[in-house]
Amino acid sequence: MRPPLAYESEDLFSSLDKLRAGCLALPPPDADAAALAAKRQSQLTKPPGSLGRLEDIVLWLARWQGRSVPRLDRVDILVFVGNHGVTKQGVSAYPAEVTAQMVANFSAGGAAINQIARTVGANLHVVPLVLEQATADFTQAPAMTEGAFLAAVATGYKAVSAGTDLVSLGEMGIGNTTAAAALAAALFGGGGSRWAGRGTGVDDAGLARKRAAIDLGLARHAALLHDPLASAAALGGRELAAVLGAALAARHRRIPVLLDGFVCAAAVAPLAKLRADALEHALAAHISAEAAHRMLLSELRLDPLLDLGMRLGEGTGAALAVSVLRAALACHAGMATFAEAGVTNKSS
Amino acid sequence: MRPPLAYESEDLFSSLDKLRAGCLALPPPDADAAALAAKRQSQLTKPPGSLGRLEDIVLWLARWQGRSVPRLDRVDILVFVGNHGVTKQGVSAYPAEVTAQMVANFSAGGAAINQIARTVGANLHVVPLVLEQATADFTQAPAMTEGAFLAAVATGYKAVSAGTDLVSLGEMGIGNTTAAAALAAALFGGGGSRWAGRGTGVDDAGLARKRAAIDLGLARHAALLHDPLASAAALGGRELAAVLGAALAARHRRIPVLLDGFVCAAAVAPLAKLRADALEHALAAHISAEAAHRMLLSELRLDPLLDLGMRLGEGTGAALAVSVLRAALACHAGMATFAEAGVTNKSS
Repeated sequence: MRPPLAYESEDLFSSLDKLRAGCLALPPPDADAAALAAKRQSQLTKPPGSLGRLEDIVLWLARWQGRSVPRLDRVDILVFVGNHGVTKQGVSAYPAEVTAQMVANFSAGGAAINQIARTVGANLHVVPLVLEQATADFTQAPAMTEGAFLAAVATGYKAVSAGTDLVSLGEMGIGNTTAAAALAAALFGGGGSRWAGRGTGVDDAGLARKRAAIDLGLARHAALLHDPLASAAALGGRELAAVLGAALAARHRRIPVLLDGFVCAAAVAPLAKLRADALEHALAAHISAEAAHRMLLSELRLDPLLDLGMRLGEGTGAALAVSVLRAALACHAGMATFAEAGVTNKSS
Repeated sequence: MRPPLAYESEDLFSSLDKLRAGCLALPPPDADAAALAAKRQSQLTKPPGSLGRLEDIVLWLARWQGRSVPRLDRVDILVFVGNHGVTKQGVSAYPAEVTAQMVANFSAGGAAINQIARTVGANLHVVPLVLEQATADFTQAPAMTEGAFLAAVATGYKAVSAGTDLVSLGEMGIGNTTAAAALAAALFGGGGSRWAGRGTGVDDAGLARKRAAIDLGLARHAALLHDPLASAAALGGRELAAVLGAALAARHRRIPVLLDGFVCAAAVAPLAKLRADALEHALAAHISAEAAHRMLLSELRLDPLLDLGMRLGEGTGAALAVSVLRAALACHAGMATFAEAGVTNKSS
């Protein structure tokens, strides 16, 4: 039922041009499975549409999984982690060494994402990306060489297992809301004052430094900002590149994806710039407290599911949304039809 | 630690005056437990406040459970069911016999609430209230006698077990959004055109009949609308009265409560009219697609947790929110502190 994955080869990561071609070659969703799911929904013991977005979620899962009764037997949470040279500009409330400390915390099971992953019955995979070497400070040089960028994309791409029913994406990296804001600015216009926010809680002076760093980066790399992938290499980060790779792999394999907050949205935005329907397999799990997130989701035409004022990252918002998907699916798979239940399905 | 429950006696349900006295005698929350919970939150490995409403939820649970680390070992979903004489006015898209048919569907495990209850690990208790006898058509007479109203309140009150950690409230009853809208209008002003919505999906003509019925009811019972409890008896329904009773019992026992949609909010609104802080133990689990719900929550100063376009009732929105509470609690109970994890907790 699924098309062969011609683009699944090392060749995809051999150059920006090859990767770009892979970003344009995308299989369509399964409209038949979605139509069958919609037919089933119309027969279940509830007024039409009364489960709201829970019904939309099921159709979306059906469309991408190619199953009229989707399943969430295996849910993989992928959290990519990277370090950022731009932290030298004083853009974060926390020192850069916290990135590696948090990886140890993830391994020990002590972080928020560990608790939420367990609660929603998902597998947590934390993938550190060359933490011993921060990206270059993008105010001075491209954050990554083309090779380093492609290697990070490949790491993310290969982290997606073909056997998973849903991928929930997240990231962690001190300084990465600055990289995300710079990338969003490069893709959608506006400068640091439009896209920079407080991240994990930077103060006024830090926010001013963050805006200035973004504007410096945009000016330095102005010549290549017409190219979404080159922009991601110059301004993004390894964990953002890996998120892009994972989202692309899921799209190639028609696996639905949950996106966490602002950094995740910025990371996958180059895909949408290359092809407008590239993120139709992705659901924005929540809207974070980072103000730029709402603007960016609007640019990407993604309608967030939850609005709980979360701004932690680590994939926590996306993981939390798994519980909503499970409830939606339980209704779809488990409810009786009007005929089965002997409930009258007509107006008085 | 908890005060004696002097109001827990049959006497509470012997007259509207006794019930009113019970609605005014409310124990305070446990501020010490909430302060301890807040102290713990400040030490966990995350930027302060970064889990947003998940942090607020934990403090709310702590305040009402009287535990700095709250628990959700036992969650009871209570769904009260009643029939409504006002259906004779043609106010619903479904015939009145669907109420009893849905109770059979709940028993057989085929309804949406059965699936969501299982998904979130909660016990489902469906409580039918004298279904063989609808309330009186409130356009002609008070929906309930004082005795019938008090009996329904008592049923709801007694359905709350002292041993539960959280009560999730819901209702079902063909015609009950009309009763809820009439009660909301009685308590907060405005007529049928302000408060009537499409409920389970009534058409334009049905909506016009619904508005007219509400205005007729308000006119007929104008003399007693200064009294919130008398208004609930005259315009509400048995399942609304039971929801009020259950919310009151939870408040007396300091058990936190999740409220489902518009009908639940209208059902408990008389408590807030009697005493402004009566619903501080209650969280509005979601905002439904019924437009009047947002107005009513604003009147009650309740900020809904989820916004998923749900409008089914049955307690489905409240039950779904249990999963968010579980995730919030898992973070609070399971995360490492900065000291335990060796993560630097300071600004750069």
